[in-house]
Parts: sequence; C-alpha cells; structure tokens
Amino acid sequence: MKHRLKVIPIGGFGEIGKNMLLLQYGDSIIVIDAGLMFPDGDMLGIDFVIPDISYLLANKDKVKALILTHGHEDHIGALQYILKDLNVPIYGTSLTLGLVEKKLEEFRLKANLNKIKPNETINIGPFTIETFRQTHSIPDTIGLAITTPIGLIVISGDFKLDQTPIDGNPPDFNKLVELGERGVLALFCDSTNVEQPGITPSESLVKSTFEGIFSSTKSRIFLVTFASNFHRIQQAIDMALKFGRKVAIAGKSLINNIEVATKLGYLHIPENILINIKDVNNLPDEKVLVLTTGSQGEPYSALSLLTNHSYKQLFLKPGDTVILSTKPIPGNEIMVYKMVDQLFRKGVEVIYGKDAGVHVSGHAAQEEIKMFINLLKPKYLIPYHGEYRHLALLKKIGLELGISKEHIIIIENGTVLEFDEEKAIINGRINLNNIYVDGLSIGDIGNIVLMERKKLAEDGVLIVGVLVDGETGLILEGPEIISKGFIFVKESEELIETAKEKVREAFKKKVGRNGGINKETLVREVLENFFNEELKRKPVVVPLVWEI
Amino acid sequence: MKHRLKVIPIGGFGEIGKNMLLLQYGDSIIVIDAGLMFPDGDMLGIDFVIPDISYLLANKDKVKALILTHGHEDHIGALQYILKDLNVPIYGTSLTLGLVEKKLEEFRLKANLNKIKPNETINIGPFTIETFRQTHSIPDTIGLAITTPIGLIVISGDFKLDQTPIDGNPPDFNKLVELGERGVLALFCDSTNVEQPGITPSESLVKSTFEGIFSSTKSRIFLVTFASNFHRIQQAIDMALKFGRKVAIAGKSLINNIEVATKLGYLHIPENILINIKDVNNLPDEKVLVLTTGSQGEPYSALSLLTNHSYKQLFLKPGDTVILSTKPIPGNEIMVYKMVDQLFRKGVEVIYGKDAGVHVSGHAAQEEIKMFINLLKPKYLIPYHGEYRHLALLKKIGLELGISKEHIIIIENGTVLEFDEEKAIINGRINLNNIYVDGLSIGDIGNIVLMERKKLAEDGVLIVGVLVDGETGLILEGPEIISKGFIFVKESEELIETAKEKVREAFKKKVGRNGGINKETLVREVLENFFNEELKRKPVVVPLVWEI
Repeated sequence: MKHRLKVIPIGGFGEIGKNMLLLQYGDSIIVIDAGLMFPDGDMLGIDFVIPDISYLLANKDKVKALILTHGHEDHIGALQYILKDLNVPIYGTSLTLGLVEKKLEEFRLKANLNKIKPNETINIGPFTIETFRQTHSIPDTIGLAITTPIGLIVISGDFKLDQTPIDGNPPDFNKLVELGERGVLALFCDSTNVEQPGITPSESLVKSTFEGIFSSTKSRIFLVTFASNFHRIQQAIDMALKFGRKVAIAGKSLINNIEVATKLGYLHIPENILINIKDVNNLPDEKVLVLTTGSQGEPYSALSLLTNHSYKQLFLKPGDTVILSTKPIPGNEIMVYKMVDQLFRKGVEVIYGKDAGVHVSGHAAQEEIKMFINLLKPKYLIPYHGEYRHLALLKKIGLELGISKEHIIIIENGTVLEFDEEKAIINGRINLNNIYVDGLSIGDIGNIVLMERKKLAEDGVLIVGVLVDGETGLILEGPEIISKGFIFVKESEELIETAKEKVREAFKKKVGRNGGINKETLVREVLENFFNEELKRKPVVVPLVWEI
Repeated sequence: MKHRLKVIPIGGFGEIGKNMLLLQYGDSIIVIDAGLMFPDGDMLGIDFVIPDISYLLANKDKVKALILTHGHEDHIGALQYILKDLNVPIYGTSLTLGLVEKKLEEFRLKANLNKIKPNETINIGPFTIETFRQTHSIPDTIGLAITTPIGLIVISGDFKLDQTPIDGNPPDFNKLVELGERGVLALFCDSTNVEQPGITPSESLVKSTFEGIFSSTKSRIFLVTFASNFHRIQQAIDMALKFGRKVAIAGKSLINNIEVATKLGYLHIPENILINIKDVNNLPDEKVLVLTTGSQGEPYSALSLLTNHSYKQLFLKPGDTVILSTKPIPGNEIMVYKMVDQLFRKGVEVIYGKDAGVHVSGHAAQEEIKMFINLLKPKYLIPYHGEYRHLALLKKIGLELGISKEHIIIIENGTVLEFDEEKAIINGRINLNNIYVDGLSIGDIGNIVLMERKKLAEDGVLIVGVLVDGETGLILEGPEIISKGFIFVKESEELIETAKEKVREAFKKKVGRNGGINKETLVREVLENFFNEELKRKPVVVPLVWEI
C-alpha cells in the first residue's frame, strides 16, 4: 500500500534557530537536525529554547535516524536534551560528529554515532539519502537528497555558493545538476539571508583584508571570531605564519573546537606557532596574535575579561588592535556596541562593522538562492530557516523564477504537509510548545512564568505582609511593605506611609462591614489603585495575610 | 578681567540622545538643547532618560538662555521636565517652537519662547549667537556660531549636507566658508552617522522610489514614517496628489505634528486631499494613502492597531502595501522585525529595509563630515552626539584632515573643558546621574531599583511567609511560598514541598540552638542554596517572618 509522505517542521520554520524537520513515510520517521535557539528579548532569563519532540516521543519506535547537516549549535545544540528520551542512531559528517562527541562528553552522554561522507548514499527504511557538499561558515556541511517512494526531496541545509572557499572545495554543482535532471519533487531552501540582494562575498574576501591589517600593524592583534568558524580561524593562523606572529587562544569553546578540528584534519596548524596565553606578555607586540571568543559582548567571555579584568594575567592595553571578525546576532546589537565603545575608551584600535571586510556571512543572498533553485528545478519550493518575512521573500524569488504560486508553500512549525503522487496538501497541525531551558530547568518554565518576569521587569514587585485578628478581621500588625524593583523605599518613606494608611483604612471600612471579603484581593486592589494614581505605575503586588 | 570659557557637556557626549551642552563665561551660562533619550535594554521598565540639570539649578541666576537647534525629541523632549525648576528664556526657529508649544500645551506649562530665524544674530550676555541653516530630517534646523570673548565656537547641531533637499534650501555653504575665514576656535561636530563611509543619500532619493511604488501599485498604500519627518510626509502627499490618492492620517503624534507644520507653512497640503480615517473604507483601494506612525513595532501604535485589531474601523487586509519609510532605532530591531513578520503573515506586501530606497538618514556620513570640517577649519575639534566609538571615529577623521592630535578632544558627559586664549584644558568634572522617567516618577528610580528589576527579570522572585512563635522561635504556620516569575507552582508541588521542609528543618536545627539568629537571613540562605542545587537558578528570595 502506498502512503503519503508526511513532512513535519518542528523548528526553524518561521524562526531562525532550533532547526528540526521530520520526514515520515508509513512507519518510518527520519529527523533532520536538532538545534537550539537563543532566546529573544521577550524570553527573560531563559538560556535557550529547544525543539518540542513530543511527536517523536509519541512515535518512538518509528524514529529510525537523526541526520545532522553540520556542526552549528542551531543544528546540533539540542542533542544533549533530547538524547535522554530518544536514543536514535545519529548520522553526520566527520567534523559534525567530532563536535557532537565533545558535547556529549561534557554532558556524560553516549550515543550511536554513524559517520557519513559528503557524497555518500545511505538507506534508512523507505528513504535513500544522498549527501552532497555545501559551502557554509563551517567545514563538512552537507545538503541531503532524499529519495522517497513519492519522489525526490532535497534539503539544502545552511549554505552559500562560495566559488573560492578556503578549503578549496566549492559546492558540488555537478551533483546539483544531476539531481535537477533526475527531477526534484520538493526543495527545502535556506532563507536566512534572503533579504540581501546580490551574492554573499566569498570567505576569501576576508583574506585580503587580513593581509592588509597584518602587514601594516605593529601592535598585538586580538582576533575575535565565532568558535566554530574554522575557515576564519585557519585564515588567521595562515596570516600569523606569514607575518611571523605566535598564536595564543583564549576562551574555552574556541580551545575545545580547535582541538577537535585539528585532530580531524579540518584545521592545519603549523608546529610551534601556538603558545600558551601566559607567554603572550613575554613576546614583542608585533609577534602576537590572540584568537578569542566574546564577539557578542557576553559579560564573562574571554574578550570581556581581557577588556575589563584580566584573562590569565593578560589584558588589553592602549594601542592593541582588536578585529571583530563576526557580526552581532540579532538582538545583541546594543551589547556588542557597548563592548566596542568600551574597547575604544581603553585606547584600543577596533576594526569592526559591515564595511570593514573582516566578516562575511555563511548564507546565500538572493542571486545565489536563484542559482541554487535554477540548478535543482524543484516542482515544489518550501522556504525554511527563516522568520516569516524571510519565507515570504523566498516565495517572491520562487515566483520570479517561474514556479507557480500553488507550488511554493509557506509552512510554519507544526504544520503537517503531505505529498502524494498528485499533489501536496496541508493536513492539519501538531501542537508544539517552546521548550525553555533555564539552568537545569528544561520545559518547566512556561509562558505564564515568562509573562510574570516581564511584568516584574517593567515595574517591579511590592510584597505586603499583614497580620490580622482572625475574629475581628482587623489588622494586628503591619502592613509591612517590601519593594524589589519598584521604588527605593528609603527615599520614599512618606509615600510608603500613606500606602500603609490606605490599607489600614480599607480594612477598617470594608472588613468590618463584610467579614467574608478576600483580604488578599483587598490589599492588592488598594495598593494597585494607590500607586497608579500617585505614580502612574503598576507594580506586581503580592499580599501575604496571616490570620491568627 | 578675562575669564576662561567653560564648556560642560550634560548629555549626548558618549551616548546618542538627551542632548544638552552648556557654555559658561563668567556669570553667564547658555544651554544648548534639552532632549530625552530612549532607554537601552538594561533600563528595564523605564520610559526615558533626561539630562541631569543639577549644575544648572545650582547656578540658576547665571542661566541666561536655552537655545534649541531643532524640534526632534532628543533635542526638545526633556523641556517639560526641566521648565518647572528652571524657567529660562527659550530660543528656537519657528517650527521648533511650534512643536515645543504643542508639547507645553499638553503638559499645561507656559514658557518664555523667542523666535529666531536661520541666519539671525542675537546677543545674550557675553555671547553673540549667529544661527545658520542646516539640512536634517526635520525642517528649520540650525547650527550655531557663538562668538565668545575667547573665540568663535561652532556647534553643528544635527546635520547632513543635502544638496537637493525637498524644501529647496541646501546648507548655507557661504556662511560656513565665512565662519571658516573668520577663524573657528572650536567645532562641536555631530558624529551620529560617522560609521558610514561615503555620503548619506539626499532626501530626494526617496522621491524616485516613491514614484516607482505609487505608479505601479493598485492596492491601498500605508506609509509609516517618523511623526516629525515633514520632508517625508510632504513627499508622500505630493505622490498622493500626483497619483490621485486621498490621504488619511493615523496616529495622534502624526496628526498633531501635521497640524503644527501646516499652520506654520512647513507642509503644503492641497485642499480636499485629506480625508477622515473612517472614510477610507468608502474609497476604491487605488485611491487610498494612509500615513501612519508605529515604525518601531510599539504595541499600541496606529500601525499595530491596524494590523492586529482595528484602528477606527480600519484594518490591514491581504494585498495592502505597507511602506516602512523609517529604520529601527538601535535596540528596537527585534520588535520591528516581529512586526514585519506579522504583516507578511497577514498577506500584506511590505517594502522595508536599507536596500529598499524608502528611507535615508538625516545625519552626515564620513565624506560630508570631512567637507564640513574643511569648510570651517577649526583649531579644536570636539566630537559630540555619539556613543564613544563614534567620537573615536570622528577623531580619526580629524587626524586624516591634518588636525593635530592635541587639538581633537574627546569628552564625555560631565567633563569640564576650558578654553583660554592659549589653549584648551580639561578641568575636572561635574557629577551627573541618569535621571529616569517612569510614569510620574522622575528621578526617584535609581540604579539599585534597576538592578533589582534585572535580577527579577532573570530568575523571578520567591516570597516566603513564616509565622513564628516569639518565645520558642519555632514555626507556627508556614512557610508559605509564592512564586512570581520563578516556577509554575502548580506543576512543581513536590519541589516546593521539599523546599518548605528544608526551611522547617533549618528552624529546628539552628533557631533552637541560637535564638538570636536572623530568621529572615536563615530563610533566604536555605532557599537560595536549595534552588541553586536543584535547578542551578537564583531567584530573589524575599522572606517575611512574623513573630507572635
């Protein structure tokens, strides 16, 4: 019997991050990627968000494999949380699995890891999965061509079309052409960078900028980059070699990642070029390159410590050069620019920003996306890895390329899309929640707690204790008022006294007449009204009434 | 006797916003601008920040005048808060004072307003103040050339060098040349947009984009702009006239501002083109232009209401075109893009972003700044209106132009700079605080309250009530535990029970042995340790202990 092919997006459709996509045919499910997402400004105090795998848990014995397209956190970062409940064989390329292993080690987890190469074919249940090489800001990135009983599905993964990548391996255009000729039923296409016209510059662009900086700089150079951008790290090391600098590494994630990538052959570090961070101070300035993390202005990153405190006896001094070879993750702009200000204030030379030529994106811009689609000639185009506007803009591009409106399908997380040999239909949706990680709490913080945090952040909290005579209902002691984040009590004594008086009056007036009144509610209402009138502000009022 | 000329920056030096600068010679102080600043992400719940005028209040009778360079909120937005304490004659151009009057009306305040023209000279104490026309994103903007007994000081105000401004009044280059020939002692130069290479496009660029959109669009057009961008508003109205659309206006600030600017002749609105918002639904789609506020994704703005609810019976429908003729204010990016996503989700066509040609900045980019400095040839260059990195980049530009390092002076708010005929020196600093406005609270929220809010936002608060026997020190009732923003108590009953048990145990163990122990501290420590161990989280714990 022929089934329909189900496609269920769990994360990364209508958002950037926590990527996870399911394909289901009959009793076989494969999962593509398992990433985390950084919280946005509304998710106060949250460390990160992970995909909701309840559908997978409810169909545990159908889940045959988890395939990882590359080693970025938005593709592998939720693994440690889901493996406990879902121990499924994991497939990925050498570097991806190397990074996964390091992560699992840290969390003391074991998994069934299966190495695949770019351009390899594996069979999993009814699915034949061919991998193909993609260029992206981390090596060993793959896309997937999945032959199903219904047709050929291509999953782009994250990609750009870099004609001159650092490792000399351009995208596998032949494979793309071949797939296009075979006939692609549906293409899931990365839309992260679709707002950008033209093409994303090659990683090699950074090389010429680095050359210019390294050849003309006499000071120490601190190069800040994402810990997984091995292309960038390789380029920095090549420059150090060329211009006679030793290289020190600051930041735990960078040290770990460099260890993994070097061992697996994705980084080529000449002998004797690495030095310990504590030896930096023994070298002349022009002999020093420090690679460091901290590009997002995180307060405890290596770069922040280098700036404000001391990172193992090393700190930034006036005249040092800092290259921010990254860009702010959306939402981090203010923090990043505060850090840049702080560096300038210290007298450091900072090279940063989109016009500096020290960073390029890892995602395809409009013309690359068009090229990619034209090579694959899909019948259906499904934008993914994007917030809603990105999906909508990719749809526009599809229309420009002549794909018909009905064949470009925008779906968001949870929407079930089904293909049979005739057509694609949307067939309901599964219920998904944001799973918030905060410390060791996974999933037990919900939207109510977040709404409370938002309210607390806006106007603070007033805690009001009252000791009441259980018989007369009158106040024996208190009210005692404690403010957190509302006012500075010491400087507002008069206001607080009046507020207390209001509560006492209300008890005399209302509790006397009506012993059954809810005393907590009374306290809350009296004080909410009072402070709204006095200050036009609405703190969270928490009454604690004891009756004795 | 000859004094030194004191320059005291109160706001806008090392930050963008709440601009205020003092010049003092002997017993005469003049104040330039009185703006507000929007809070950054750390200032939770704050409405905005205003300059600290304590130095002015301490020198009240020396303050001779407040001169406003233009009508933007970061230059006039603090007026209503400082006028109560400092009733000083205010000088400004016609449109600037028109906007000020409207604002004062709203706050029921009166002030001594004195109209000046661009290219007028006024004498105030030892200062001779010449105004000169600048081009910026609001009409009637001026710069100031202030002749003091020590020398000529030029204050750029906000500016760009727009060769083809909408009102046909390019910058007063002749005046700049003349000032340069007279000899400028010091130039205070706008650095807001100094990160941008090249030149800022003319406001006229937007015209050709608008032409393209209006000539090819059959749907209703909603144009979102800053309420004070009269050039932009004028261009939109011109397009409506040209392409036969009627114009409705949504948003109180826009309605007010358009009224002021029309009355004063800064907006030219043809008869019969304006319609009431409630009549939009009676017109064919291609006859409608709606001007609206809400470009920053503010939840109660006209645009948000049009999107999510209904603004006076009008709401956005699929196919409508929305032009975001603005840009996100730094820190608002996430909110703005969520709004754009929401619009696309509704099926609205959104034209937005830096490549769309529907917005240009009002501030000079690098090449304009160079031109401006070259015309004025100042001895001293003092960057202002910028965060620290902007000031540092402007310094670089000054060096490139051949100004000596010693003559480019970076000062931040509060630093006192003094000029005599020989030299400039930094002579100490005055103490300044951030004055936070939150509802009706002005200045009584300090950094402690903000730090509390931050802590609450991160991990929430646990309120713990205990009723204790005053003699034995043992717990009679409770502990009662209330969470706000920490956990969802109903789903964590077991955890909460264990926490309560920990408190009870601690009382038995420690209070028995030592009646003098601080019971509040005990409760706090027990619970902080417990939740840190259990969840790796640190809520604010507020104990309320009653002894009876």
